[in-house]
Amino acid sequence: MSTQVSPSSQRAVPADGPRWLDAEEQKAWRAWLFSSMLLQDRLDRELTHETGISHAYYEILVALSETPGRRLRMSELADRCLSSRSRLSHAVSRLEERGWVRREVCSEDGRGQLAVLTDDGFSALEVAAPVPVASVRAHLFDQLNPEQVAAMRYMGETLLRHLDPPS
Amino acid sequence: MSTQVSPSSQRAVPADGPRWLDAEEQKAWRAWLFSSMLLQDRLDRELTHETGISHAYYEILVALSETPGRRLRMSELADRCLSSRSRLSHAVSRLEERGWVRREVCSEDGRGQLAVLTDDGFSALEVAAPVPVASVRAHLFDQLNPEQVAAMRYMGETLLRHLDPPS
Repeated sequence: MSTQVSPSSQRAVPADGPRWLDAEEQKAWRAWLFSSMLLQDRLDRELTHETGISHAYYEILVALSETPGRRLRMSELADRCLSSRSRLSHAVSRLEERGWVRREVCSEDGRGQLAVLTDDGFSALEVAAPVPVASVRAHLFDQLNPEQVAAMRYMGETLLRHLDPPS
Repeated sequence: MSTQVSPSSQRAVPADGPRWLDAEEQKAWRAWLFSSMLLQDRLDRELTHETGISHAYYEILVALSETPGRRLRMSELADRCLSSRSRLSHAVSRLEERGWVRREVCSEDGRGQLAVLTDDGFSALEVAAPVPVASVRAHLFDQLNPEQVAAMRYMGETLLRHLDPPS
């Protein structure tokens, strides 16, 4: 997994092209990308295996559970779950079929749709919750020392200010 | 985006349940997860927008370009791209349609399939290569100081030893 082609091909790059990654940067980037992908994949597999709920669906239930009235506008829910509107709409339809979420017209302005977590949805979330916590504990926090955890947070917050600046 | 439900629901967790994340751990984990997802999404969007090649497809071309003869067994290619066999097979079929990859029977043992990067595929890779490098430079390395880059690599390598130990 890499972002650049092998050195032999770099001859094709124009002089005003990108600043290529050096060997150390390449190693740092690969380690970060691989570990991110593997960790996300591991969490999703363990959650799906134990509970039948994918990590993406689980995050929708969590986001709704954390709001007053356990409801959010679909657009706000998509933002919180880093999902596209169309992908979220599809997921909410699947969660409606399970009886865990229902859609309501927004009563504030009569426009827009709300997703509402049902009591059954909240119960399903309570049952599932220990699984991803145990996964994150085992595969992330138990592997890192306190300095690494602090560095992880600092780096994450630095990148978030760039990638998702406060509006 | 979270891995645990709101504190009120923690009453439902049995005494021998998981060690819940405290507020600091939750912040570190959220920052890491959000920034990982946003960065991967940004790289994929910029590459797709500029070149019409998704990051997943691009990584297949890169992996093949880095091997002698620009060819790999499908199973080995799937491992290198952190892909399932079925997802990789689908992607290789799409790359075959573009004339960038072809399949061959493995001549060593007559069993198994090789994916081979074509000259057209290598050319496409050379044209595309500056885009993801510029993205990683702009959205990752230009945002971090040298200590953060070193911590990123150290953390990534620590997690990889756990998630993908040498066999």
